[in-house]
Amino acid sequence: MENLQEPFPSGQASDTLAGRFHAVREATEALCAPLSAEDCLAQSMTEASPVKWHLAHTTWFFETFILEGHQPDFQPYGEQYRVLFNSYYNGIGEQHPRPQRSLLTRPSLDEVHAYRRHVDRAVTTLLDSDEAGEIADLVELGLNHEQQHQELILMDLKHLFSCSPLDPVYQTPATAPERTAPEQVWIDFAEGIRQIGHPGGAFHYDNEGPAHRVFLEPFRIASRPVTCGEFLTFIADGGYQRPELWLEEGWAHVGREGWEAPQYWRKDGDGSWTVFTLGGQRPVDPSEPVCHVSYFEADAYARWAGARLPTEAEWEVAARECPGPQGAFQEDGHLHPVTAPEGSRAPAQMLGDVWEWTGSAYLPYPGYQPPEGAVGEYNGKFMVNQMVLRGGCCATPRSHIRTTYRNFFPTDARWPFTGFRLARSAS
Amino acid sequence: MENLQEPFPSGQASDTLAGRFHAVREATEALCAPLSAEDCLAQSMTEASPVKWHLAHTTWFFETFILEGHQPDFQPYGEQYRVLFNSYYNGIGEQHPRPQRSLLTRPSLDEVHAYRRHVDRAVTTLLDSDEAGEIADLVELGLNHEQQHQELILMDLKHLFSCSPLDPVYQTPATAPERTAPEQVWIDFAEGIRQIGHPGGAFHYDNEGPAHRVFLEPFRIASRPVTCGEFLTFIADGGYQRPELWLEEGWAHVGREGWEAPQYWRKDGDGSWTVFTLGGQRPVDPSEPVCHVSYFEADAYARWAGARLPTEAEWEVAARECPGPQGAFQEDGHLHPVTAPEGSRAPAQMLGDVWEWTGSAYLPYPGYQPPEGAVGEYNGKFMVNQMVLRGGCCATPRSHIRTTYRNFFPTDARWPFTGFRLARSAS
Amino acid sequence: MENLQEPFPSGQASDTLAGRFHAVREATEALCAPLSAEDCLAQSMTEASPVKWHLAHTTWFFETFILEGHQPDFQPYGEQYRVLFNSYYNGIGEQHPRPQRSLLTRPSLDEVHAYRRHVDRAVTTLLDSDEAGEIADLVELGLNHEQQHQELILMDLKHLFSCSPLDPVYQTPATAPERTAPEQVWIDFAEGIRQIGHPGGAFHYDNEGPAHRVFLEPFRIASRPVTCGEFLTFIADGGYQRPELWLEEGWAHVGREGWEAPQYWRKDGDGSWTVFTLGGQRPVDPSEPVCHVSYFEADAYARWAGARLPTEAEWEVAARECPGPQGAFQEDGHLHPVTAPEGSRAPAQMLGDVWEWTGSAYLPYPGYQPPEGAVGEYNGKFMVNQMVLRGGCCATPRSHIRTTYRNFFPTDARWPFTGFRLARSAS
Amino acid sequence: MENLQEPFPSGQASDTLAGRFHAVREATEALCAPLSAEDCLAQSMTEASPVKWHLAHTTWFFETFILEGHQPDFQPYGEQYRVLFNSYYNGIGEQHPRPQRSLLTRPSLDEVHAYRRHVDRAVTTLLDSDEAGEIADLVELGLNHEQQHQELILMDLKHLFSCSPLDPVYQTPATAPERTAPEQVWIDFAEGIRQIGHPGGAFHYDNEGPAHRVFLEPFRIASRPVTCGEFLTFIADGGYQRPELWLEEGWAHVGREGWEAPQYWRKDGDGSWTVFTLGGQRPVDPSEPVCHVSYFEADAYARWAGARLPTEAEWEVAARECPGPQGAFQEDGHLHPVTAPEGSRAPAQMLGDVWEWTGSAYLPYPGYQPPEGAVGEYNGKFMVNQMVLRGGCCATPRSHIRTTYRNFFPTDARWPFTGFRLARSAS
Repeated sequence: MENLQEPFPSGQASDTLAGRFHAVREATEALCAPLSAEDCLAQSMTEASPVKWHLAHTTWFFETFILEGHQPDFQPYGEQYRVLFNSYYNGIGEQHPRPQRSLLTRPSLDEVHAYRRHVDRAVTTLLDSDEAGEIADLVELGLNHEQQHQELILMDLKHLFSCSPLDPVYQTPATAPERTAPEQVWIDFAEGIRQIGHPGGAFHYDNEGPAHRVFLEPFRIASRPVTCGEFLTFIADGGYQRPELWLEEGWAHVGREGWEAPQYWRKDGDGSWTVFTLGGQRPVDPSEPVCHVSYFEADAYARWAGARLPTEAEWEVAARECPGPQGAFQEDGHLHPVTAPEGSRAPAQMLGDVWEWTGSAYLPYPGYQPPEGAVGEYNGKFMVNQMVLRGGCCATPRSHIRTTYRNFFPTDARWPFTGFRLARSAS
Repeated sequence: MENLQEPFPSGQASDTLAGRFHAVREATEALCAPLSAEDCLAQSMTEASPVKWHLAHTTWFFETFILEGHQPDFQPYGEQYRVLFNSYYNGIGEQHPRPQRSLLTRPSLDEVHAYRRHVDRAVTTLLDSDEAGEIADLVELGLNHEQQHQELILMDLKHLFSCSPLDPVYQTPATAPERTAPEQVWIDFAEGIRQIGHPGGAFHYDNEGPAHRVFLEPFRIASRPVTCGEFLTFIADGGYQRPELWLEEGWAHVGREGWEAPQYWRKDGDGSWTVFTLGGQRPVDPSEPVCHVSYFEADAYARWAGARLPTEAEWEVAARECPGPQGAFQEDGHLHPVTAPEGSRAPAQMLGDVWEWTGSAYLPYPGYQPPEGAVGEYNGKFMVNQMVLRGGCCATPRSHIRTTYRNFFPTDARWPFTGFRLARSAS
Repeated sequence: MENLQEPFPSGQASDTLAGRFHAVREATEALCAPLSAEDCLAQSMTEASPVKWHLAHTTWFFETFILEGHQPDFQPYGEQYRVLFNSYYNGIGEQHPRPQRSLLTRPSLDEVHAYRRHVDRAVTTLLDSDEAGEIADLVELGLNHEQQHQELILMDLKHLFSCSPLDPVYQTPATAPERTAPEQVWIDFAEGIRQIGHPGGAFHYDNEGPAHRVFLEPFRIASRPVTCGEFLTFIADGGYQRPELWLEEGWAHVGREGWEAPQYWRKDGDGSWTVFTLGGQRPVDPSEPVCHVSYFEADAYARWAGARLPTEAEWEVAARECPGPQGAFQEDGHLHPVTAPEGSRAPAQMLGDVWEWTGSAYLPYPGYQPPEGAVGEYNGKFMVNQMVLRGGCCATPRSHIRTTYRNFFPTDARWPFTGFRLARSAS
Repeated sequence: MENLQEPFPSGQASDTLAGRFHAVREATEALCAPLSAEDCLAQSMTEASPVKWHLAHTTWFFETFILEGHQPDFQPYGEQYRVLFNSYYNGIGEQHPRPQRSLLTRPSLDEVHAYRRHVDRAVTTLLDSDEAGEIADLVELGLNHEQQHQELILMDLKHLFSCSPLDPVYQTPATAPERTAPEQVWIDFAEGIRQIGHPGGAFHYDNEGPAHRVFLEPFRIASRPVTCGEFLTFIADGGYQRPELWLEEGWAHVGREGWEAPQYWRKDGDGSWTVFTLGGQRPVDPSEPVCHVSYFEADAYARWAGARLPTEAEWEVAARECPGPQGAFQEDGHLHPVTAPEGSRAPAQMLGDVWEWTGSAYLPYPGYQPPEGAVGEYNGKFMVNQMVLRGGCCATPRSHIRTTYRNFFPTDARWPFTGFRLARSAS
């Protein structure tokens, strides 16, 4: 008999696809546990979405791309859900206007949870059927998609809470190690033809392939991301007042939006800086990686420092050939970047802590082809006017990230957990 | 011992101020009973506010203008509430930005209800003390203020629900009388000096006074508001396509916003019109007063009909000297205008059913003075670029309205329950 | 044989219609004499028009409303001129987009002058024909229309030149009398029924009629407009920083646009104020009427001064029943308001110097009917969301103005020559 | 004695720097010869500038970067010119707001020509002095800068004239060869490391260097740009209605701006297409390269055609290693792309006719360093959110272009002479 409350029968191991499906879906809901229905409805800007919408959209993804084509006698759960929770898949059809997602007081949060349970049961059933092999790749894609939305939930929520004069606390963070950032050192790489991109054979997004060759001139890359302390020196040196350090478009943002520090930083009356985090407002720690900077700020800092941002190829080669200690991930419960450990000569924090802006535009790799059909709208159609970020952050699930992973944001985005590390062309 | 759950001891008669305080505050909450916390958070446009915000702001009004000055040992209930729930009183201080009211997921709806109970108890206590006489006028003002927000709750909610593809139903409406609109007849008034405005001696808003003399040329006024059926004839005659019928600024709205019918009307595939109401989507009834039209549409219709809108003085004289049967109010449970009864020769529906656009700009009466202090920001500072509407509507509490009552909206407002009746200068 | 260069045969007396036609048309061109073709093309904001466009549009008016219906074998001068130089007459047809008038480098200024000569000759011919009686009223309207555009040319040009860092001088002004403003005194008027509006029998705009009765409570009106010196006291008293003095919409303008003084005022390093005029930049003269203030500023000043603006009926009664010395007009060559003369007890400067904001919204008089056809779009369709101004200004031709004249502008307009005088309700 | 009218003494050969200075400066003025002062003032959009402003700004460049540092007893020609004609050089100081360039009726066109002659004489004198060697590189830069503005004059003017309902003709074009476009064939290139970028030793912009190695996978490139005829097939196949062909941001442009064909195309009543050119309105010639398409349109066409755009490295290798017949340049007097000649197997029109969108983002080459000082703001600060275009166009001076030349525009720009050719990854 069907158990309405427990879509995931206990005993499933997490190393099966069904087990991982169970685990990822539950993890999303665990993220929402501290939130009220009201918290889950608000939308603080067009770029962000309500938490409830994320909960429904990730479910819509499984319903639309898996159940619809593979479930016998498929019936849509809700006629209008097809439109309401479609993000941008033109191949599926119309979409509810993005800026109006917070008007969807109906369906309620409870109804969305019921929708999740319904789809969970149906997918679980399919995974236990003859169709399992057929749908495995799409389930894998759906789980990775859901992990991306877990991170979006956290960053959208942080933006929302930062708009409240009540300074809400999402959760008490895990205790971060108390330590001082190690000195930044340069790690050298020789010139040559390298292969980058995912070689295949395991799950990866279409945009990570095909693997291909690039020629790299000799370069050096920093052993860790730029810290808040270093960034404070940039600020103190007039970094936000000197147009010669900035790209023209970045300088226009500085003037128009009054940027004078990373997003979420606040200067108190005594001149000290505090930062809004998912664990509440607290002093800026000079040892931590700087976070919530736009590409423009990362680029301006690098110019000020006599350096530049690494290309994505340089970054990938460094991360692959010479991996150092990793940073914090979602599961670690910091939800804020953590100071780098005392270091080896290998680059630290390439994975985790902060997404790192690269100097590469988000464009297709040579030979790139998106999948056929609506699911092909996942990555390819965004390949313009954005920059590549690498490495994941403190809000990314550990199992979600890898060295070939290509994230992308517009150059003025500051609400993701974005930092950067420096590079130089070897002379 | 204080009963935390029942701020209003039973047994208070509604003809005392305390009794009316009790009744009005409860009526507000009764309006919200069918709504979830999510329904109460959303804000569908800058002009509208979340229901929760209305609940808190009306409470803030009592706390700020009564408790703060009169309660011994007054302590603000919440430090930030002073800012969060201040609408536009510059004399009180800063205000949370209006377009961001839906970001206030905190305080929760439950917390706002607790805030209401706290203030209710404190006001009740004061009304039972020696201060009662001192605060009576401000309590009266606060209750009328709250009644205005009851209407705003209904019209803002209607706008919100109209944005949902799910066509939510707020409540099953009371059964409306099935009848055909009586023929429109003209009622004549002779020229002469008339007094208009509130003569004093009972509660009224500052903007209704002082009473003063005006000279009226002879005029005629219609026995009832224009109906949907009449308005359909205007539409069929190309009303929305003929610039000569429109004020220039109205014509620009028609083009820019694609107006082709009153707000909330929808043309179905078969050419028939339905209308979205708080009781759900249903066919347009030709006998009902037309509703949700802007000043521009009312003015264009009047020009098409060879008539004009009455001035507010004409309207007031007609309503006072020759009152016919009234229309529906909030308590009647229609929440939608109702067909006029078979008529006497007196003008019907001057009070109730639809707010009636007049041809008068909202300006101070001769000798008008707002009260001293922040409470004086209530009406006077809006006396520009708006038109006067008279008579209340199906969402207005019956006890709130009177013939001298002056409402006002910008000329393009369509989300209030706005209709109109015709007038003519006698030749 | 036709004289191509002299459309106006000499010897015509200016008291004939043909003579006045000649004079008004020449006066327009005289205003443009100091300007280059470049000066005549620029458009500094949407509300303003290029001088060349004014030259062509006034000509279009005669061609469209007179030649087209009355000239035998009428042929349009230029096919596209009908669209290019139509301002807003929907009854005539399409219009070139207003914000793009400065893109009309073709036809050239010379070609527009040729267009003027062509139409001048044709109208002159008609005025000498049997049609003369038929077209007389329309010619009169066209001349008054052209006089309005003379004033618009001056105010639009002033705005344009004020945008130039070169501080261009339009012309050396006539020498203004050096004198100190007389003390402001109050002139009393008793209550009673008065007739206002144009009684007919001579040229007047449709919006000035019909004459009709109004009841006025007793009032007092100031003997002269508010001066710059008085306005400086308002500024020094924090007038632009105190929200309690302002209408809400006005206060929003103050914040959004950074108003801190009348338009064209500039505060120099030493704290003294200068003002940009058509005669160049010069010190603010405390004795002159303050000019280039919005309705919001006039209203705020009046509130600060414990007074109010007069209604248009009060203004008209005072100007008619008790006329004092007049102010400067276009022909006087000041193109800037001039200090009031030492006064009688009669109100000075009711006509001339500055347009005076009244507290009356621009709405139709009882019984108002615009003319049939496109020419009826002249005034009526603008009767919403504007306030009435009275009396003409230093840029208005003397023969153009009268006490019943109703001008109108939106409440935030500051580029016309707008000032104000105070009034009070008598107690 | 100084000859005020002839800054360039006759007899200078065009192969000296002074001779080329003479020739380039004169060529700019020749482009303006058919234009009135009015034509030279208008600005049809923020991205475009008035012709007069181009004339002055190019002169400002020589005055600011050469005369100011090298002329003995330098005095600025006009105090305010430093601000008025500074485009975006923050290192020099403030700038007149870009959208208000058309308000600069003063200085007049004649005064700007006088400014040009003044600076021309001074530079000529310097080039004949001991300073000649010192300033040679900057003069070279200034001449290339002026050539870029020659092209801008033509494209900005084309946009302006296209806004006029009079369809102005700039000049009668040279007679284009009547021929049919040759078949498009693919030209193959093998994989390998190639050097791209300017090797130095002659004038080039900083952004063309340093020369550096890249690895190219095998690819094929089309023998000529896509033609209007081919693009018409794309349109007929629903190209502008099929979201799956478009980048998401491009698809938003299609919807918002109603794109349905290249800019300047107009569909006549009979379904045939005409195009607005600098030589007037004329039928679309199916054989010509398609022109005035955005990056988004080029990209969508390529996807539709089963191909892609070449990278800038692929383009440069093809143009260098296998140069075919060139296209039309400014001097040829077509000012419109011309049909490709009957072809060899080498790629035609790599230089000339249309700027070709590449699939490469405009970013710095490895090791790129802009010059010190304000002159370094020339190229580097724009290296974000733009795409590279290659090859010059029918409005580019022949001497200005080369295979390493990197032009750049935002992805929605359509008013430059932009076309594209296809490429494919070899399988």
